[in-house]
Amino acid sequence: MTRTITAQPLTAKAFAPFGEVIDTAGEPDRIINQGLCGRYHDRATLTAEDGHPGLSLFDAKPRALPYLLDMVERHPLGSQAFIPMNFASFLITVAPDTDAGPGRPLAFLTAPGQAINLFANTWHGVLTPLAAPGLFAVIDRIGKGANLEEHWFDTPYRVIAPDG
Amino acid sequence: MTRTITAQPLTAKAFAPFGEVIDTAGEPDRIINQGLCGRYHDRATLTAEDGHPGLSLFDAKPRALPYLLDMVERHPLGSQAFIPMNFASFLITVAPDTDAGPGRPLAFLTAPGQAINLFANTWHGVLTPLAAPGLFAVIDRIGKGANLEEHWFDTPYRVIAPDG
Repeated sequence: MTRTITAQPLTAKAFAPFGEVIDTAGEPDRIINQGLCGRYHDRATLTAEDGHPGLSLFDAKPRALPYLLDMVERHPLGSQAFIPMNFASFLITVAPDTDAGPGRPLAFLTAPGQAINLFANTWHGVLTPLAAPGLFAVIDRIGKGANLEEHWFDTPYRVIAPDG
Repeated sequence: MTRTITAQPLTAKAFAPFGEVIDTAGEPDRIINQGLCGRYHDRATLTAEDGHPGLSLFDAKPRALPYLLDMVERHPLGSQAFIPMNFASFLITVAPDTDAGPGRPLAFLTAPGQAINLFANTWHGVLTPLAAPGLFAVIDRIGKGANLEEHWFDTPYRVIAPDG
């Protein structure tokens, strides 16, 4: 089986097994501020076992495609939302869980303005912005105890753009 | 007393009575992802009486300076964080509480990449991006019950840029 993975545009349907897509697709739930603002209400399922969801910033070095994916990680105790603070596309890598650990990864490219919320215990690659600044707000579990599991692939995957 | 308010650069010190500034000033709390990402950890005090903090998106029409501030509002039951999803400055207006309602407002201009978290019950103007898209992630209280109080000024204030 090829170790090359083609990134696909992020859609809620394709991403559903791994988490939630948070964007302004469709009509807002409410119009507020005298008609000048649309509110897309309560769009993420934030979970934090033995802790609470908190807000942090991640400042990550931008990457480029093709991207070598050599590791995935997961957080058993809570969800993790990644909110880009730059109106730019970023790369998401996830993998299904199998009896033998993470299966073949999938790669998604966001449209500018899309955020995601990964479900607890979902295998994913580290944050991979594709543009500078690689600044993200992250909502994840704040609490004590081990909440990180890593898996290194024997052979890295090569993630390529949709156009190759 | 003049009804003109000069916006000032946002600093944690000046904003302290009203909320928290969330940015990457100073060193990160942790370096993660094999040295490629700085984590600025747990930077907001999220509160939500009789509810829970949730994630919504606000898509607001950009404004320009000078800006006419005719109303402030507050949310007694929870904090409200505004995270820009565009790397651009936005305008923040807040007002101290007095026995007669909101006092003279203050106005702040963020640097690109700065987010804020308003404390519960803090008078503030509505979300005022200064660039398109005016897209923000908002973390505020999800729950039942009245959580909005509005105050309309008899005479609006005029908020001007630092350079007039």
